[in-house]
Amino acid sequence: MTVESVTIAYLGPAGTFAEAAVTAMGLSGVAVPAASVIAALDDVRSGKATAAVVPIENSVEGSVSGTLDELAAHPPLRITAEVAVPVRFTLMRSKDFDGQIQAVGTHSHAAAQCRRWLHENLPDASVVFTGSTAGAAALLGKPQDLTETGPHFDAAIAPELAAHRYGLAVVADDIGDNRDALTRFVRLELPGPLPLPTGADRTSLALFMKANRAGALLEILTELAVRGINMTRLESRPTRHALGDYCFSVDIDGHINDARVGEALKGLRRACADVLFLGSYPKHDGNQPVLAEGVTDADYADADAWLATQRSNR
Amino acid sequence: MTVESVTIAYLGPAGTFAEAAVTAMGLSGVAVPAASVIAALDDVRSGKATAAVVPIENSVEGSVSGTLDELAAHPPLRITAEVAVPVRFTLMRSKDFDGQIQAVGTHSHAAAQCRRWLHENLPDASVVFTGSTAGAAALLGKPQDLTETGPHFDAAIAPELAAHRYGLAVVADDIGDNRDALTRFVRLELPGPLPLPTGADRTSLALFMKANRAGALLEILTELAVRGINMTRLESRPTRHALGDYCFSVDIDGHINDARVGEALKGLRRACADVLFLGSYPKHDGNQPVLAEGVTDADYADADAWLATQRSNR
Amino acid sequence: MTVESVTIAYLGPAGTFAEAAVTAMGLSGVAVPAASVIAALDDVRSGKATAAVVPIENSVEGSVSGTLDELAAHPPLRITAEVAVPVRFTLMRSKDFDGQIQAVGTHSHAAAQCRRWLHENLPDASVVFTGSTAGAAALLGKPQDLTETGPHFDAAIAPELAAHRYGLAVVADDIGDNRDALTRFVRLELPGPLPLPTGADRTSLALFMKANRAGALLEILTELAVRGINMTRLESRPTRHALGDYCFSVDIDGHINDARVGEALKGLRRACADVLFLGSYPKHDGNQPVLAEGVTDADYADADAWLATQRSNR
Amino acid sequence: MTVESVTIAYLGPAGTFAEAAVTAMGLSGVAVPAASVIAALDDVRSGKATAAVVPIENSVEGSVSGTLDELAAHPPLRITAEVAVPVRFTLMRSKDFDGQIQAVGTHSHAAAQCRRWLHENLPDASVVFTGSTAGAAALLGKPQDLTETGPHFDAAIAPELAAHRYGLAVVADDIGDNRDALTRFVRLELPGPLPLPTGADRTSLALFMKANRAGALLEILTELAVRGINMTRLESRPTRHALGDYCFSVDIDGHINDARVGEALKGLRRACADVLFLGSYPKHDGNQPVLAEGVTDADYADADAWLATQRSNR
Repeated sequence: MTVESVTIAYLGPAGTFAEAAVTAMGLSGVAVPAASVIAALDDVRSGKATAAVVPIENSVEGSVSGTLDELAAHPPLRITAEVAVPVRFTLMRSKDFDGQIQAVGTHSHAAAQCRRWLHENLPDASVVFTGSTAGAAALLGKPQDLTETGPHFDAAIAPELAAHRYGLAVVADDIGDNRDALTRFVRLELPGPLPLPTGADRTSLALFMKANRAGALLEILTELAVRGINMTRLESRPTRHALGDYCFSVDIDGHINDARVGEALKGLRRACADVLFLGSYPKHDGNQPVLAEGVTDADYADADAWLATQRSNR
Repeated sequence: MTVESVTIAYLGPAGTFAEAAVTAMGLSGVAVPAASVIAALDDVRSGKATAAVVPIENSVEGSVSGTLDELAAHPPLRITAEVAVPVRFTLMRSKDFDGQIQAVGTHSHAAAQCRRWLHENLPDASVVFTGSTAGAAALLGKPQDLTETGPHFDAAIAPELAAHRYGLAVVADDIGDNRDALTRFVRLELPGPLPLPTGADRTSLALFMKANRAGALLEILTELAVRGINMTRLESRPTRHALGDYCFSVDIDGHINDARVGEALKGLRRACADVLFLGSYPKHDGNQPVLAEGVTDADYADADAWLATQRSNR
Repeated sequence: MTVESVTIAYLGPAGTFAEAAVTAMGLSGVAVPAASVIAALDDVRSGKATAAVVPIENSVEGSVSGTLDELAAHPPLRITAEVAVPVRFTLMRSKDFDGQIQAVGTHSHAAAQCRRWLHENLPDASVVFTGSTAGAAALLGKPQDLTETGPHFDAAIAPELAAHRYGLAVVADDIGDNRDALTRFVRLELPGPLPLPTGADRTSLALFMKANRAGALLEILTELAVRGINMTRLESRPTRHALGDYCFSVDIDGHINDARVGEALKGLRRACADVLFLGSYPKHDGNQPVLAEGVTDADYADADAWLATQRSNR
Repeated sequence: MTVESVTIAYLGPAGTFAEAAVTAMGLSGVAVPAASVIAALDDVRSGKATAAVVPIENSVEGSVSGTLDELAAHPPLRITAEVAVPVRFTLMRSKDFDGQIQAVGTHSHAAAQCRRWLHENLPDASVVFTGSTAGAAALLGKPQDLTETGPHFDAAIAPELAAHRYGLAVVADDIGDNRDALTRFVRLELPGPLPLPTGADRTSLALFMKANRAGALLEILTELAVRGINMTRLESRPTRHALGDYCFSVDIDGHINDARVGEALKGLRRACADVLFLGSYPKHDGNQPVLAEGVTDADYADADAWLATQRSNR
């Protein structure tokens, strides 16, 4: 595949943190905004895009439910990379506008994360929710023809990148209440060769419980703990069947090719109604897990050899 | 307190499922819409309202993160009742409009839950996201003065109640993809006398982990399992400090006045950095838990008496 | 190997329950009494005997420590069969003696198990401890020459078989306080082909703990529980290094060739300082374990195949 | 009670390690040998003795089954103190005898522990088992009248104290294969005031399982682990009902008056068919347990107060 043919669908519009994530991942090729997480993933499923880049988890808002749900949908895609992008909000306006800001457009999550700044700096402004932060910027930047009404707001909260994309003027930068906020983005591709283990890998799973099995979560955690595997994220998602009927979206330390992860996955496969393997890929922070005694590949190989000897007639 | 003085703040605007939940709870008093979950809760905190009714969990979308986060905020409120409301979506339009529907306004969650119907029946219509389903209906029903632009859509997906509230015409009823969808609503009040145990109660908690304690969730589940307590909901929510730093929002079977629940809460209190008790209240379905051997109040009382005897000099 | 060449060393002397166990096992060949459990095992280790039959567990006295300790010693032997022999005590005397019984010879365990009968029937008789029950019978039955002193007792408590072996007269039969008492005997051989799995098998292990690992036993039990394996016997034995430094002698349901047992043994191998595999062999009662969901060989094979598919590039 | 009236029954005869344990415990009063563990305990039950001193655990031979079984018998006694006595074996003979040693009398456990020495130094001597080590010494030291036959051995392996008691000559000292061997002795009394907590205490229990409850031991260990309690000894003992039907004899770190131990005992009481509390007493080594976070009495008191606040109407 030549570089030219590579198309990356990201959660658009242009100027979102997702576009910044594509850059941060160092991906070559053409980055194309998609209207939604679903649309980005469907572009990969249909072959229109080689990969999709979508948010999965935010340090303030938590997991991105839509992404988790789509990851558990069919046909399956695989996570092949991740990156963590600082969430830095910028207030921007049209270069033509210099009046009093009476309404601010942004995504509801961004509004929530800038609540304190807005309260202190624009106490009288109303907030209009848009489908995305960059979408608000796009509306502000769009040339209006005479027959059309403009947006119902005169400033937008969006990534600074959006100001460049849409030719807007920055009013205030870094206005988030939590300046350490990060969003984790993942790259999704069709199932294919797995990224090689690096020693600092993450594996993502969707686990569907057997009906009527009390203590199912305790059982799952024990399957992991027995193999010395650390769980770094757990989210319950409704299966859409009944209130209280959940599956679990889980990240664990390690690569499916690691012996301990392989055995744990097989244990989960036997304990759960279904297990979706969503990928093994290098962690964005490169932090290697501290392993307990007896869980390295060498320990597993030694135990395999020992068992074979005991089972044989020697 | 007389009935006249009771004010119930619900997640507005008028016509939402939350208004239906207020009715389903059989609450007397004046029901007043609030602009957001936060606003409804702040009305209770400030004394403007006696109680708030807000969604906490949806069988399709999962937990309502904003409610969970607000429940964990200060000063604390207590859940005193719950109800499950069927989620039935209705497509509605202005009585004056009889053209082709080109754009539909609704909340993004409702749009997601009616995706199949929209795809089959209005494949060419665009969808405009609004802050709430009833909000879309309200915009349609609002008389437009000449200087103002109307909404950017000509139909709304909202609860049928909204059609009545805003004088709209029903185009199609029950258009959700999942007709068994339910939303669980909770009533929140200032801390006060707890609802009495009924034998079919739920207790809600927010659990904050001690830093750097691997296996913390396994530990929490074990604290519950040892006392024979079933967990009915578990949600991790970011603490807003760092990616991967979570607290847990948990529902368990039982009432804080049950001996087993009391001992488990004390165990959690000792094992966690902090435990917020968010209330004990009757379950909407009235289902009594099947108890394991040895965990009734009588079993606890017997064990207390036995220990006292052993510790004394007899 | 011809039948003629087979020699079975049993815990002697002739007439013990161990000799009865040899018969109950249906073993062909020459049964030869050994002076002790150690002697019987050393006969196998040195090639003097093909197999040894020794007691391992008694329903009244518990595990036979000497056997457990020898099983954990080197070079290792393997258990290849087991049988449960009813423990039925008989009071016997020399055919020449018809006086008042003033002293009874027997093993201290047999004395303990006949305490009530002795108290009621021979309240004034003293009890002399001998190395084995049959040993007491042997002394009574031995012709005395003039220069030698006879035994310090005039009756023996031993298996009825001993009366036949030593030409003694039965005074009273079935005098044990617990008439359902059983002793489990095992056949030990040099490591060789394992008995084939029957579906109702037992596996015996000696587990040596890693130093300074708190919760080691909990860890071991979890390794077994995760694979759905039932433990039927657990005995702690001192390692002879320090007070409180123990290894565990364990029986589990299942055969080392069962997938779940194999994985559990590998887990124990990784978690323990050392694991001695002491054999897999048919249970004397033929009771098949009730298996949990997901732990059959077919379930394991399915999980193996599933993992291979996930790891491959498809 | 005056010192004169105190009688200590120890496992006799005179000269055993049990007599040394009485001295090591610093007990005042008259020490009287008893014929067996049962006899010593019955002396306490009947009021003939104030306390009994018997062995409970040996670093080489493991638990003393007879003592464990008697501790679980009725009416109950309580352990009120413990001591660890070095096991040092001495070969001794009559001062009149200076011939070749052809037979050595001792207890079977002592013989096992001196196997190597005997093999190297008296390879041709036979070993005659006696009921106790000191018993062999007593026989050697006993003046023989003409009509009586002497013992069937000409030397004894016993504690050095026995040589003094019976006027014997030491042939060789410290002949045990394991020179660090220790025996733990306990003092038993009728139930009465408990020894006060010292911070380095042990609590002994006998736990009877509910029938047909798989995973019972895992459950017990979890009851302890959840309260941060370390188990220092576990022994399964047959209930004498059926092969494989066991109770557990358990030592744990801590005093019944400790909050965590109290809660754990109540948990065991609810989980088990029966729990016998056998005493809380200072550990012989004075080692204080390293406590996990959240399990001190102060932590328990804080959690109690917190729960009371939550349950009240504030």
